[in-house]
Amino acid sequence: MAKNITPREKDYPRWYLDVINAGGLADYAPVRGCMVIKPHGYAVWEAIQQALDGMFKATGHVNAYFPLFIPQSFLAKEAQHVEGFAMECAVVTHSGLEKTEEGVLVPKGKLEEPLVVRPTSETVIGAMYAKWVQSWRDLPILINQWANVVRWEMRTRLFLRTMEFLWQEGHTAHETEEEAHQETLRILEIYRTFAEEWLAVPVVTGQKSESEKFAGAERTYTIEGMMQDKKALQMGTSHDLGRNFAKAFEIRFQGRDKTLQYAWTTSWGVSTRLIGALIMAHSDDEGLILPPKVAPIQLAVVPIWKGPEEKAKVLEAAEKAAASARAALGDRKVVLDDRDELKPGPKFFEWEQKGVPFRLEIGPRDVNDGAGVLVSRLDRTKEKVPFDRIGEVLPGKLEAYQKALLERARSFRDSHTFEVDDYRELKERVQAEGGFYLVHWDGTPESETRFKEDMKASIRCIPGTVRDGEFQRTHTEPGTCIVSGKPSPGRVIVAQAY
Amino acid sequence: MAKNITPREKDYPRWYLDVINAGGLADYAPVRGCMVIKPHGYAVWEAIQQALDGMFKATGHVNAYFPLFIPQSFLAKEAQHVEGFAMECAVVTHSGLEKTEEGVLVPKGKLEEPLVVRPTSETVIGAMYAKWVQSWRDLPILINQWANVVRWEMRTRLFLRTMEFLWQEGHTAHETEEEAHQETLRILEIYRTFAEEWLAVPVVTGQKSESEKFAGAERTYTIEGMMQDKKALQMGTSHDLGRNFAKAFEIRFQGRDKTLQYAWTTSWGVSTRLIGALIMAHSDDEGLILPPKVAPIQLAVVPIWKGPEEKAKVLEAAEKAAASARAALGDRKVVLDDRDELKPGPKFFEWEQKGVPFRLEIGPRDVNDGAGVLVSRLDRTKEKVPFDRIGEVLPGKLEAYQKALLERARSFRDSHTFEVDDYRELKERVQAEGGFYLVHWDGTPESETRFKEDMKASIRCIPGTVRDGEFQRTHTEPGTCIVSGKPSPGRVIVAQAY
Repeated sequence: MAKNITPREKDYPRWYLDVINAGGLADYAPVRGCMVIKPHGYAVWEAIQQALDGMFKATGHVNAYFPLFIPQSFLAKEAQHVEGFAMECAVVTHSGLEKTEEGVLVPKGKLEEPLVVRPTSETVIGAMYAKWVQSWRDLPILINQWANVVRWEMRTRLFLRTMEFLWQEGHTAHETEEEAHQETLRILEIYRTFAEEWLAVPVVTGQKSESEKFAGAERTYTIEGMMQDKKALQMGTSHDLGRNFAKAFEIRFQGRDKTLQYAWTTSWGVSTRLIGALIMAHSDDEGLILPPKVAPIQLAVVPIWKGPEEKAKVLEAAEKAAASARAALGDRKVVLDDRDELKPGPKFFEWEQKGVPFRLEIGPRDVNDGAGVLVSRLDRTKEKVPFDRIGEVLPGKLEAYQKALLERARSFRDSHTFEVDDYRELKERVQAEGGFYLVHWDGTPESETRFKEDMKASIRCIPGTVRDGEFQRTHTEPGTCIVSGKPSPGRVIVAQAY
Repeated sequence: MAKNITPREKDYPRWYLDVINAGGLADYAPVRGCMVIKPHGYAVWEAIQQALDGMFKATGHVNAYFPLFIPQSFLAKEAQHVEGFAMECAVVTHSGLEKTEEGVLVPKGKLEEPLVVRPTSETVIGAMYAKWVQSWRDLPILINQWANVVRWEMRTRLFLRTMEFLWQEGHTAHETEEEAHQETLRILEIYRTFAEEWLAVPVVTGQKSESEKFAGAERTYTIEGMMQDKKALQMGTSHDLGRNFAKAFEIRFQGRDKTLQYAWTTSWGVSTRLIGALIMAHSDDEGLILPPKVAPIQLAVVPIWKGPEEKAKVLEAAEKAAASARAALGDRKVVLDDRDELKPGPKFFEWEQKGVPFRLEIGPRDVNDGAGVLVSRLDRTKEKVPFDRIGEVLPGKLEAYQKALLERARSFRDSHTFEVDDYRELKERVQAEGGFYLVHWDGTPESETRFKEDMKASIRCIPGTVRDGEFQRTHTEPGTCIVSGKPSPGRVIVAQAY
């Protein structure tokens, strides 16, 4: 057990921060609630960006950039939206600082209208789309933006909830309701695929209840993952905005029938929170475990020597092995750790805590054998692999590693997902054991509120899958609501959540 | 001449905006002084990012992310810096909005200390480095950040000067003065190489005068390009910060000799202004011209047909040609414009104005010939190319196109660069003709001020080149200052600038 990491069992929140710290992923910034994403953490984000960006582009989306600032009056244009976002945000009121006679800096140049630092960009993008869209020929608009956003959070936690975070926000406008709905579901499927295939985090897809949906949306779809403390984490959302923002911002077009119509819009996003998700889903008491597909480094080659003669010998073999690996995985995926100032032990430790899937140990005896010892971060298995076959065996091993992570997480999730029909049992277990609880709900906000007030839990989603371009609710055997005893059309997932 | 574009001769600033508008590069945002980077413009930025990011990583730099907000007190810690950046910036003073009884939104939650939206990040990054650096073993730190920054500009122009812009800012910390100096020059060379080889914009490298250097730097190096109106554009800067920020933020380490020492830091950046540079350096009265290496689309295949029978025939050939091109250039570099709703003329026009280097016209007769007409955006030359040879010929043609652009820009720059020794001649010509003027300067701020006050020009740089790891001043024949008549150690470049 790593000494710099608190065990999960002892203090889960502390463990999470220790893993981040030991892995060199992030640090608190000198500004309250803000974080610094350190190079290793940012490299994970770059891998996430690259994969998602490719998926967006393959489905016809393009990137653009919209301004950081939103005039206060824009936020007020959509009635639901303003309630959800205007209350806790960073407000710019001045255009500079000046020195007082005492030499103290004070704000100067008060703005006529305050500007809000974007908490999300539906409003300012809506205003631009209104300008760009005249005819049905201008539709669809399929734009994504990679950006920073700010929400004034009181309780923050690295990656999971910070005042500023990085994300992508897609904003699309369509000619018909059906097209917009299809877009919402297409993105939900991209998010699910990405979470499972890249992050190795199995997710439940579903629809949010009225009270949990995005402020201004008609319908919000979500992917929900289970963390190792059995809490739910919302990992991405896709919103069908109907014509709400089109009406608020006058996004109108002349239709094929020559009538003036409002466009149908969607928005969707995932954020640096995904890094929090993969830390909490996979890591152990030794530190970070990364899915190979988003691991900035996939192999650390660690030569072991005493004295200059051994050093020359093992370095030669290490370079050969690294070259073989680089040819297969790419230059930057392989590190050869030839630092003089560190002994092998601390080097092993460092790469382990950075979540590097494999390390290759090469000592003088290994050089004589023509093979190094390949050690898996996941299960510590060791295997002798000839130096020149490293590149050949690694891709398969990384694929198996990725798969094993997903299976482990899926089995964990499945073994902590329960059908429960008794309210007292639910209340006790959701708080004491954690986990996902499939329970009957009558669909009313009154019943929903009870989960929040009584057990600090919430309806994570109304589970369903996308099939033939339709969202099809699962778990639809009828029953009676666990709160009210009234008829229920099917089960929903209740859990405590981040 | 394109009707939607004002000729350069008639109104250069208007031409610039027309090219941006016709090319779908950017738009003014509803927030004063802010811009929206539209998909085609953002795709150019993505190409720029990808190339530069590769160059930074190849020289050992890594990316990270630091917070958007800087506590006001941080700005005040470096005496020069605060003067340069605190006066015109966006100041966050409140943490939310609330509704008054009349239903009007007003700021609430006044902050104890105002936050400044980063105009540049030396201060907040300095504070983090102070935390991260203890020993010489922690150095160097070679971090870059891709981010948005805000400066409260009064007169804005798309890409060239906007309130918010996108950029990269590198921030490094070193053990020795020499190492930091080498880093500053290494980056200057990367910027020069990138400007010339990727943007096809020849640049003068040089050092800024005291009055023009970065607020807080010991030395600022710059790359300066010449636009078609013969004004200079500063395209990137690299700053040797000495120990100024290390002292202000206590970035200290225990040296190899066990003494406590201040680190030596650098910073350097280029921004979305580079897009302005390539528009103004290359485009013509027909619209945008893009260097192939940063052109999001390199070939537009435009089939020409009448009636469904011809359509099927030309589309088949067009697809064959597009496939050949895609195999050579990559999928996203080739567009097959099979839109029904537009005639060929408007399609040609659109791709021309988007700066696509080549288009391939394919009509029914071309299908019979087995070859389409390849048209160059640069000089309108046309050439018949067999459909299946498109992919084979394009890479060479794109390379020649890239080279021709650079040569054209270089020849333009060189033919508008003059050595002048008479003050009245300088004053008249720099304002009437524009261009770069190599003049003798005595090195005093008094003489420098005269250029600004007398002819709205400035010393763009003290020209030099990086050779053997040293910045070596060029044009060093001694002379007498064009302003004061005092001795001058060499010539500097005076020009009007953006």
